[in-house]
Amino acid sequence: MNQFGTALRLSIFGESHGAALGCILDGLPAGFAPDLALIEYELKRRRPRTGTESTSRRECDNYRIISGFYNGCFTGAPFTVIFENADARSEDYSNNIARPSHADLVSFVKFSGANDPRGGGHSSGRLTLPIVFAGAIAKQLLAKKGIKIASHIAAVGDISDAPFDPCMTEFPELDPMFPLVDKSLKPGIEKLFESVRERGSSVGAVCECAALGAPIGIGEPFFDGLESVIAHLVYSIPGVHALEFGAGFGFARLFGEQANDAILPNKKTATNRSGGINGGISNGMPIIFKAGFRPVPSIALEQESIDLDSGEKTTLKLGGRHDVCILPRGLAAVEACLALALYELISRK
Amino acid sequence: MNQFGTALRLSIFGESHGAALGCILDGLPAGFAPDLALIEYELKRRRPRTGTESTSRRECDNYRIISGFYNGCFTGAPFTVIFENADARSEDYSNNIARPSHADLVSFVKFSGANDPRGGGHSSGRLTLPIVFAGAIAKQLLAKKGIKIASHIAAVGDISDAPFDPCMTEFPELDPMFPLVDKSLKPGIEKLFESVRERGSSVGAVCECAALGAPIGIGEPFFDGLESVIAHLVYSIPGVHALEFGAGFGFARLFGEQANDAILPNKKTATNRSGGINGGISNGMPIIFKAGFRPVPSIALEQESIDLDSGEKTTLKLGGRHDVCILPRGLAAVEACLALALYELISRK
Amino acid sequence: MNQFGTALRLSIFGESHGAALGCILDGLPAGFAPDLALIEYELKRRRPRTGTESTSRRECDNYRIISGFYNGCFTGAPFTVIFENADARSEDYSNNIARPSHADLVSFVKFSGANDPRGGGHSSGRLTLPIVFAGAIAKQLLAKKGIKIASHIAAVGDISDAPFDPCMTEFPELDPMFPLVDKSLKPGIEKLFESVRERGSSVGAVCECAALGAPIGIGEPFFDGLESVIAHLVYSIPGVHALEFGAGFGFARLFGEQANDAILPNKKTATNRSGGINGGISNGMPIIFKAGFRPVPSIALEQESIDLDSGEKTTLKLGGRHDVCILPRGLAAVEACLALALYELISRK
Amino acid sequence: MNQFGTALRLSIFGESHGAALGCILDGLPAGFAPDLALIEYELKRRRPRTGTESTSRRECDNYRIISGFYNGCFTGAPFTVIFENADARSEDYSNNIARPSHADLVSFVKFSGANDPRGGGHSSGRLTLPIVFAGAIAKQLLAKKGIKIASHIAAVGDISDAPFDPCMTEFPELDPMFPLVDKSLKPGIEKLFESVRERGSSVGAVCECAALGAPIGIGEPFFDGLESVIAHLVYSIPGVHALEFGAGFGFARLFGEQANDAILPNKKTATNRSGGINGGISNGMPIIFKAGFRPVPSIALEQESIDLDSGEKTTLKLGGRHDVCILPRGLAAVEACLALALYELISRK
Repeated sequence: MNQFGTALRLSIFGESHGAALGCILDGLPAGFAPDLALIEYELKRRRPRTGTESTSRRECDNYRIISGFYNGCFTGAPFTVIFENADARSEDYSNNIARPSHADLVSFVKFSGANDPRGGGHSSGRLTLPIVFAGAIAKQLLAKKGIKIASHIAAVGDISDAPFDPCMTEFPELDPMFPLVDKSLKPGIEKLFESVRERGSSVGAVCECAALGAPIGIGEPFFDGLESVIAHLVYSIPGVHALEFGAGFGFARLFGEQANDAILPNKKTATNRSGGINGGISNGMPIIFKAGFRPVPSIALEQESIDLDSGEKTTLKLGGRHDVCILPRGLAAVEACLALALYELISRK
Repeated sequence: MNQFGTALRLSIFGESHGAALGCILDGLPAGFAPDLALIEYELKRRRPRTGTESTSRRECDNYRIISGFYNGCFTGAPFTVIFENADARSEDYSNNIARPSHADLVSFVKFSGANDPRGGGHSSGRLTLPIVFAGAIAKQLLAKKGIKIASHIAAVGDISDAPFDPCMTEFPELDPMFPLVDKSLKPGIEKLFESVRERGSSVGAVCECAALGAPIGIGEPFFDGLESVIAHLVYSIPGVHALEFGAGFGFARLFGEQANDAILPNKKTATNRSGGINGGISNGMPIIFKAGFRPVPSIALEQESIDLDSGEKTTLKLGGRHDVCILPRGLAAVEACLALALYELISRK
Repeated sequence: MNQFGTALRLSIFGESHGAALGCILDGLPAGFAPDLALIEYELKRRRPRTGTESTSRRECDNYRIISGFYNGCFTGAPFTVIFENADARSEDYSNNIARPSHADLVSFVKFSGANDPRGGGHSSGRLTLPIVFAGAIAKQLLAKKGIKIASHIAAVGDISDAPFDPCMTEFPELDPMFPLVDKSLKPGIEKLFESVRERGSSVGAVCECAALGAPIGIGEPFFDGLESVIAHLVYSIPGVHALEFGAGFGFARLFGEQANDAILPNKKTATNRSGGINGGISNGMPIIFKAGFRPVPSIALEQESIDLDSGEKTTLKLGGRHDVCILPRGLAAVEACLALALYELISRK
Repeated sequence: MNQFGTALRLSIFGESHGAALGCILDGLPAGFAPDLALIEYELKRRRPRTGTESTSRRECDNYRIISGFYNGCFTGAPFTVIFENADARSEDYSNNIARPSHADLVSFVKFSGANDPRGGGHSSGRLTLPIVFAGAIAKQLLAKKGIKIASHIAAVGDISDAPFDPCMTEFPELDPMFPLVDKSLKPGIEKLFESVRERGSSVGAVCECAALGAPIGIGEPFFDGLESVIAHLVYSIPGVHALEFGAGFGFARLFGEQANDAILPNKKTATNRSGGINGGISNGMPIIFKAGFRPVPSIALEQESIDLDSGEKTTLKLGGRHDVCILPRGLAAVEACLALALYELISRK
């Protein structure tokens, strides 16, 4: 089901090149006045950019609130927002060749050929637009409770950023449009993007995301622990194939005494290898995870595939301009997922 | 909520040292006769062992089916199974010192001190017992559809097993009680376990798990893609802190043409970097993921912590005998989660 | 939550005088081509009419499908439809007097005054518009399975129609826009409506609704029996205050031998006092219930109430033109609820 | 699914003559110490009695709490209770004749003959035992919020009790084991029960149930209004076929000015024809409904039916002793449903 949450229920709908896309948020607090500029800001962070990074879309992402909002406040009734697809271009998708590592083939089979194939239809990364919108609201609701969320580009190709301090009490200064802990890496990454674009290829990346200020007690032991709920949402972002909390896969090489976080009299821990979570429940330390993205599968290089209508072998080269890397703009979606997961679990208590 | 699934709904209950633990499975097919020997077998795989690996528990894991089962078949009504806690020893938990990297502190705060603290209470790894039981049933239901599940120890400390062939059509021969692709590694791992045990420590590990025979079309685009649902369940296993599908974090270093899987005329892909999933939907290739476990936090070495009742600083050394590594017995739980996730999503269609 | 169903999930949104209202249907079968004329027809049945029965609204109920629909078929992705509120007139609701027996007061308190008060906001009967739309689709999906739904005005004031034959295999001929088993009652009912309108009052009514062709086995023992699920939906229609299945309240005066339905060798029952349901599960006989509606609370007669802003006592007389009776146009909503309930439960199996 | 609620989730399991039955309650407040004597008391009210009213069962309803309970308090983990079926007598159900107006036939068809047929299996009225247990807890949680629940026998056969005063602020004095507003009716009802029993028949009944002290604001506009949620639960009680709130079916004969409840400056209403609910939301007045029960279908008189195994026509006379009327002991279940519905909706806010 195209839905997440029970306390704050997010339902998304729409296709990449359909009439419109959008979402319903059910469970927002009546009387809360969201800052629309902050929402715009998150949408901007998610938007494809000209220059080093770009896609073929020129959507302005204008939204229209159609319910649940009155006199500048949430009403308590379902809040619905719509994004019209001004730039939908059906003619681009007149043939029906399955793009490798996209959902074209599996959707065709799953939905017996009735799916909307244009631009990936409902499986398009464009569906992160309502998720980022919803996350921008969740972030504001969390901010009122003293919880802040940020992320940075942890790795692209062979370039690795410095990690967050796992015991930080404030985020380092970050450029929200291109966040790096070590700002000196930006030119190198831009150069990598440029060379990848010139080749018509794309490149993978890793982001690191954290929440500061979360109190002890968020999450439920089985099955709705914090990792489970965050993972459920983050893995819904197209392109995410890996996720680790705290020391993550690095735990395999550690012994117990290296892995455990000693508990201090103030209930904090001396280290934070657990990523702020014990037994699925937040422990008051920064909640930290890394998410790994595959290279954008839309590349201009020749690939082998099949024509879905005829079933016959063919090759394809994707034209237009595409993202060369899901980051940095994908960070807006990751942060949105963390915000939605935290707010959902906080609201259940 | 202590529940997973809507088509096949698994509800678990119980505490490590309470009267009993168990689960309800609601949505099992009426008339299906489960092979109880196969269930026993999975319970045995999960059981602590003497020798190189062990815990302090000597539970025999006898179960009692109390509803939804008649004449050897599921009835279609809720199926309930209970495991009595014959070996519960409350006196072991008379003090209330928070064990580092356990859920003791967070549960104490979250439940205002009303939680059952004995052995981690409801947050105990013992709760994987009903999960393995349920997974053993799901495995049988999947087997009827031609889907098989297996896993192996991919890494322990510095020792790494050979990976599964991502395009395999059959699993390699594996010893279910200590599965390794490269069997020659077993003595080295046992020796590592022995030395870790002697030190009173523990060690982390990684497992690799796969499903073969899954058809195209399992999973839903948003938010219930295969990765999301598998991750939700696998992250509910105590100790899991990392999860990656297919090339996983390795994607960061790949370019698009290295990452994409060319589609063949038979609808299979030439490679399987995607781990058998595109856009959250199974693509007919092996579904493959790796899960990373932290070292068991129960160690016999001295650690710093606090007394939950007084709030004062203290140290602790955990007595008794504990697992030195969650693997291999934790593999039963990982496979159970994969089986439950697949059966849930198949049943929704 | 403003949502119903798990197999076919209906989410509604919007307010009486907001920008738009609509719904998402998630779980529709990919490839099914709905007959839009049949949808239009149900919307027309629901629409206020000039003449003997009317409201102040002149909505044309034009709808716009914005997702999940491609080449005339459902795609399998969430299906979303929007109705713009062309005739919204905020100025009608400049004061804030709680209309007796409306939800004005309770919404004001529940949502701390942040609710949209115009025309009842989200609690308006106008929200039955997306429900009727969704029901028109469910009806078509049921028709493919041989299940038909119809209803008639069973009582208005002192006038009672003849009941359905509880063992019917076909519905009697009914005028869909003003359905009565005994057509001769129509002039009397119209005359009653006319006199009630002239007085500025309104009148209550009862409808009888049935489904024919439902196989044995729809519904689940606890807690999602057919009566439970039908009741859940029917009671969501504004104005419904009573519901009975089969002999209903009449059972109180019956003895066991008068109430039981003898079972025949063809698995039908000789009588149908049970209303087609045993133990929450359909038994193959007509599924029959009656729903009782209160008089429309919007009347032109003077009433006592309070001003919500000042809390002070006041009186009000509602101007404009209002329904004098929820029937016959409310029948479209009742049938929609039955269709949605049946399709939901059929789809779960 | 055999489950109700999202904030307080009740899952029931078990069969009439299986090993045991019981329930899980997930979402109870950690630290709350339930009064077990009050639970016992509700179980006693539900229990079949010797004398004028009786069944063939002699269950002592001993329960065993197996999880979620520690030091006399709820822990916040799932609370599970089990009732062993000490008196299960499988031999009573050696043949397989469908009892008219029971669920025997429909369960046989729905579950392909795999259902447990003994005593109605999972569809038995015995499943109200865990519901009453859960309701007894919900009542205590509501009492802490100042909400009280009671009910009485409103009608049996031709005998009608005086109704509750719809504007009452306290319940009239009621004998909990045989509650009547007009106590003088008791001998007549007992005499009726006696004559019905002698004939081997049974008789229908109506109960009236109310909650006092509920604040304004419980319930959600669509689809989880108070009537919807109460109806969902009450209709899950075997034997309930009718339900009306406030003036209920009587509204059909009323005009708007007779039906509306004038709003007073103290936010109460001058009358309470709405049964304490407007637009699905509690309005601060008593929440009042009537539920109609069919005669118990188990009668000692000869009835026509079929043998489920052979499909052939047969007759049956049910031996043993059965309830002649679901009331008064069914009142415990109705009150439990109201308590669970209210607590669920209160807890969602």
